[in-house]
Amino acid sequence: MTRIGFIGPGTMGRPMVANLVAAGHQVRCHARSAGARERVASTGASVVATTAEAVEGAEVVITMVPAGPDVLEIVTGSDGFLPVLPAGTLLIDCSTIAPEEARQVHAAAAGRGVRCLDAPVSGGEAGAVEGTLSIMVGGAAEDVAAAREVLGAMGSTVVHVGGPGAGQVVKSANQIVVAGNLQVLAEAMVFLRAHGADLEAALDVLGGGLAGSTALTRKRTALLTEQYSPGFRVALHDKDLGIITAAARAAGVALPVTALLAQLLAALVARGDGDLDHSALAKLAAELNRPA
Amino acid sequence: MTRIGFIGPGTMGRPMVANLVAAGHQVRCHARSAGARERVASTGASVVATTAEAVEGAEVVITMVPAGPDVLEIVTGSDGFLPVLPAGTLLIDCSTIAPEEARQVHAAAAGRGVRCLDAPVSGGEAGAVEGTLSIMVGGAAEDVAAAREVLGAMGSTVVHVGGPGAGQVVKSANQIVVAGNLQVLAEAMVFLRAHGADLEAALDVLGGGLAGSTALTRKRTALLTEQYSPGFRVALHDKDLGIITAAARAAGVALPVTALLAQLLAALVARGDGDLDHSALAKLAAELNRPA
Amino acid sequence: MTRIGFIGPGTMGRPMVANLVAAGHQVRCHARSAGARERVASTGASVVATTAEAVEGAEVVITMVPAGPDVLEIVTGSDGFLPVLPAGTLLIDCSTIAPEEARQVHAAAAGRGVRCLDAPVSGGEAGAVEGTLSIMVGGAAEDVAAAREVLGAMGSTVVHVGGPGAGQVVKSANQIVVAGNLQVLAEAMVFLRAHGADLEAALDVLGGGLAGSTALTRKRTALLTEQYSPGFRVALHDKDLGIITAAARAAGVALPVTALLAQLLAALVARGDGDLDHSALAKLAAELNRPA
Amino acid sequence: MTRIGFIGPGTMGRPMVANLVAAGHQVRCHARSAGARERVASTGASVVATTAEAVEGAEVVITMVPAGPDVLEIVTGSDGFLPVLPAGTLLIDCSTIAPEEARQVHAAAAGRGVRCLDAPVSGGEAGAVEGTLSIMVGGAAEDVAAAREVLGAMGSTVVHVGGPGAGQVVKSANQIVVAGNLQVLAEAMVFLRAHGADLEAALDVLGGGLAGSTALTRKRTALLTEQYSPGFRVALHDKDLGIITAAARAAGVALPVTALLAQLLAALVARGDGDLDHSALAKLAAELNRPA
Repeated sequence: MTRIGFIGPGTMGRPMVANLVAAGHQVRCHARSAGARERVASTGASVVATTAEAVEGAEVVITMVPAGPDVLEIVTGSDGFLPVLPAGTLLIDCSTIAPEEARQVHAAAAGRGVRCLDAPVSGGEAGAVEGTLSIMVGGAAEDVAAAREVLGAMGSTVVHVGGPGAGQVVKSANQIVVAGNLQVLAEAMVFLRAHGADLEAALDVLGGGLAGSTALTRKRTALLTEQYSPGFRVALHDKDLGIITAAARAAGVALPVTALLAQLLAALVARGDGDLDHSALAKLAAELNRPA
Repeated sequence: MTRIGFIGPGTMGRPMVANLVAAGHQVRCHARSAGARERVASTGASVVATTAEAVEGAEVVITMVPAGPDVLEIVTGSDGFLPVLPAGTLLIDCSTIAPEEARQVHAAAAGRGVRCLDAPVSGGEAGAVEGTLSIMVGGAAEDVAAAREVLGAMGSTVVHVGGPGAGQVVKSANQIVVAGNLQVLAEAMVFLRAHGADLEAALDVLGGGLAGSTALTRKRTALLTEQYSPGFRVALHDKDLGIITAAARAAGVALPVTALLAQLLAALVARGDGDLDHSALAKLAAELNRPA
Repeated sequence: MTRIGFIGPGTMGRPMVANLVAAGHQVRCHARSAGARERVASTGASVVATTAEAVEGAEVVITMVPAGPDVLEIVTGSDGFLPVLPAGTLLIDCSTIAPEEARQVHAAAAGRGVRCLDAPVSGGEAGAVEGTLSIMVGGAAEDVAAAREVLGAMGSTVVHVGGPGAGQVVKSANQIVVAGNLQVLAEAMVFLRAHGADLEAALDVLGGGLAGSTALTRKRTALLTEQYSPGFRVALHDKDLGIITAAARAAGVALPVTALLAQLLAALVARGDGDLDHSALAKLAAELNRPA
Repeated sequence: MTRIGFIGPGTMGRPMVANLVAAGHQVRCHARSAGARERVASTGASVVATTAEAVEGAEVVITMVPAGPDVLEIVTGSDGFLPVLPAGTLLIDCSTIAPEEARQVHAAAAGRGVRCLDAPVSGGEAGAVEGTLSIMVGGAAEDVAAAREVLGAMGSTVVHVGGPGAGQVVKSANQIVVAGNLQVLAEAMVFLRAHGADLEAALDVLGGGLAGSTALTRKRTALLTEQYSPGFRVALHDKDLGIITAAARAAGVALPVTALLAQLLAALVARGDGDLDHSALAKLAAELNRPA
């Protein structure tokens, strides 16, 4: 049993908390919104009014918030909780943020003797509910070892991928691949529809060969019905590609298809579809070929 | 037992012949090159000197040649075998050619009372050897039914995807998706290397989540070792994207990422890497970011 | 004074005829549509009912039709005029067609002792009316010399760019550059509008520096008013990019931005905007960023 | 006569100083490097050892440095000169920086009663030497009026394009258009070379029609000789596209071709060609189609 402070029990965070509680951990939660605080209460976690209360007495603190600036604010901001953490506390940030921001959090934590991991997750709401998230962890090996039981309650694939920030680097790579796998399915659907192919049969045979992918399996229904309910929101995937574009530029590498994928996701947001599932790349591909 | 004439026992065709023989069919083979004729002899098929001899007395004729003009020449050309086929013979073209060319073959066959299927395959040399190809079949339902036993000797996923040409349409969609899935892995590798990530761990965690794909599983070693031995040659995938680009244009649809993938494959060929495996998209992605 | 047979007096062809007549040449015209025949009558050219009559007795035959198959049909088709031309006649094709098709026309003409030039034009309806077209001419130097007076009546820039087909090659290059120059203006407008810049002032300053272009000067009003009346139709520019994409593939070269431009023009056509001026690339760029 | 403090007399800044001196202004210069200080001495400007000395007593202060962080450091940093400027001084930043950074400089200046303009320039070293720069100015109308004489000594096109930051917004649009105009010329050259066209004749005819551009005129020799000596360095244009990509994302707009241009410039830098002229996009286009 570990005493855990959890900040940010939203769409993803709430089922993660539920799995931590189910695994026998004692979890104290804080959420900014009253609605989120209410919804997480049913998991059996105790719900508190401030981040300070959430982290008080915690051996492990987990943050799961929308973006890098949110993480920096709640950890190192003027009201951030870092100063009140005892040395030796383990801080695990599961948010998806820029590798550079993750390294800032690591550095700030190190400056206070707090152990730190960046541990972004993949697998969507379904993976969070089932406890089958993939978790890519950056930080020191001994801290990953210490976190393994807690992380194992939330995910089935927990991999130590490198030092501070490496978890976010791998999450970026993950988001490149997912966006691309979705987009070529989107274009394949346009091609198939234009030629009057039997779509279900086509997706069957694609799935059985080298074109098969988890994206095809999971988004098959969305592609066939053209209903794109989240899932993982376009706006969040777009945010991730903003992080990736900037990180690629900072690292001095050119990624031509990734750059184009970033524009397609940005267009979806600009067109008002930011709240759809990211498989809605197929909606944009269709609309690009249809009178407005 | 079916009497089969088989034209084109190359890298893919030879193991397809071997599986047909192993399934108890009587196969007569013709290949243009002496080397190919020699190599196919060890499968137990009888090898003949001309296409006319190969198709003589056959109930089913299978063609497996590099490109559309080859199919048109051997079937409907001045020395083509179509005029000598008895009405009712079943012609199965397993080559990957343009949907429009496939429809020409269907029409010519219909004009002579010959039954016809376009049945391109996916799965690479490994799939051909193991008899686990995905076969996407276009044509009449009763002809697909008649072909099912023969096709089942070569592939484990045999799907009727629509009328004449539909097999090639779905194969095109397959090649769009495969090229895209490979390219985003290529760009992800550039990103990961630029940030010094643990590449094996990174691919593990990508494979376990929404980024997972058959391409990732099968090309993992190639991506890690940067050795791109075929497999499926860049030059053939490039040829396929030429077919797709033209077919998309004929159908009046815009496919932005597909168009960019076609350029990247064309660049690989222009740079002298046409004989590498198509996972060599990762070689181009790396070279784009490295002094010449 | 030269006796000229002119086939295809449409939007571009009619003012070209008018300038030939004004320069003192004797022009006999044929058009497929009755409307076109009527409109060209007012130029002072004589209008005839068939291509055969138009070319009868002509020293120079000029063709100006929509696409390659049209040229091949009227020149070398079953009712084509090539067989009735006396050896030594000069055939000038001003249509924009594939380099490969142009070379077929040259070869067919050579086979009959007919001299031949491919001479596509640039400059739009305005250039045709003013007689200021750019004409890029492929063929033998002595034939270009012989054609110079006639071509000079229609255009102010007449350049011999190489052997048979070279005119079409250069026209392709021209259409790549024009599409690209228009598209980056389109994206610049999106960027400027998103930031609330003074658009007229911005275009002034762009025009005065390294960003200046003929496209900016001629399409300035269209960009500012978002009214895209032709001009040069999207559908024709899209057709040209189909030619270019295929010619690049045949030549084995990769052109990434050109490929993307081809998709954007195809999307405009698919969205029902094929009859707008090609500056409507700015319409698509805007709509990509605006709720449907 | 105006007393001017000038910070950053490099490749562009030095001839700008020379023109200010030639127009009768009294200029005090500071450069970080000893070499730059030495080179600017021959213009007749007085050269001083610190930014503080340069701005002392100045009515107008001009900054012309590589990037946004440089501007922020020398203006508002811990040793920045802003605190020592008397209220009413006119600060003109001619550097190319992010619109957002420009607005930070404006806000900081306003907080001290200092008047401020963002006034990036276009036209390259040649334009700086000849005093024919295009200058796009953001800020208050009365401040632009007050600056007009000074700016007119350096540029021939001085346009007030909007409020604080608008100069940088228009400069971004300028850099989008320039990169695109260069890239399509690069791809046109690949196409022309692949088809064996007469390159000089081709560029003549392109220049005479709708494909004409200032980029074509100025970079013609570079394109024909494949010698890409600056001019304007790839690394700087790449930096600008980093600014633009981020500004487009912040504004929520998708710019597909611009995003691809950003990758091509990044690739040039990654390949070691950052110090070439930006027309070296043609070098990359050629190398993409040639064995490494």
